[in-house]
Amino acid sequence: MSDAIERALDQITFDANGLVPAIAQQHDTGEVLMVAWMNRDSVRISLEEGRACYWSRSRQALWRKGESSGQVQALKELRLDCDGDTVLLLVDQTGVACHTGRRNCFFRAWRGGGWVEIAEPLVTPEKLYKEPQA
Amino acid sequence: MSDAIERALDQITFDANGLVPAIAQQHDTGEVLMVAWMNRDSVRISLEEGRACYWSRSRQALWRKGESSGQVQALKELRLDCDGDTVLLLVDQTGVACHTGRRNCFFRAWRGGGWVEIAEPLVTPEKLYKEPQA
Repeated sequence: MSDAIERALDQITFDANGLVPAIAQQHDTGEVLMVAWMNRDSVRISLEEGRACYWSRSRQALWRKGESSGQVQALKELRLDCDGDTVLLLVDQTGVACHTGRRNCFFRAWRGGGWVEIAEPLVTPEKLYKEPQA
Repeated sequence: MSDAIERALDQITFDANGLVPAIAQQHDTGEVLMVAWMNRDSVRISLEEGRACYWSRSRQALWRKGESSGQVQALKELRLDCDGDTVLLLVDQTGVACHTGRRNCFFRAWRGGGWVEIAEPLVTPEKLYKEPQA
């Protein structure tokens, strides 16, 4: 399996920083949950472990989604786009995807000449993160 | 309106190249159609014209989606994520989003240890682009 994964990784065109944008979409509802970044290791880990693992650009570290919040994304399917430089993760999101406590990160909509918040937090960040985030 | 759009643009965090990733999603079905990039001008034009306009990194030019193929994306709503560095366009896609003639760009799925094409072209690229692409 690992040889197959290595071959799969070779089909992905990582950018100059070794990254690709990764969209997480709730597999059954189609809700776009968040966008993060993946490097080669994080794609491999996601396929091997069956859960979304990203690369945190701010922390410069692998980031298994939910490792500190419990809000894990089970990976249902990984898809690759025509240019091979963007991946789409169909996931089953436990709880909320956004660090603000909202279900998804795209809670600001341009309506009537301004940004309007269209979703409320379902949980407070304090409850999500029992320990301070690194 | 243009003042409001300028203020909206100030809420977006463009990267070192002046770009943000932009996801186009079919507004009614939730299908993720494609990912492209937008600069400040392309966001402004999209809001002003009510259709998706991207920044082509390969051509280093504004790219009104559908300008050569006719496959226009009417903009139904623009959304911004929590960090302000990714935008989501809810669109109504005319025809197909992918330059390969497929409805969306994410037609390769990781299944059974390899990439599998899960969608066929609905139209040939030759029919899509009557003139050679710049």
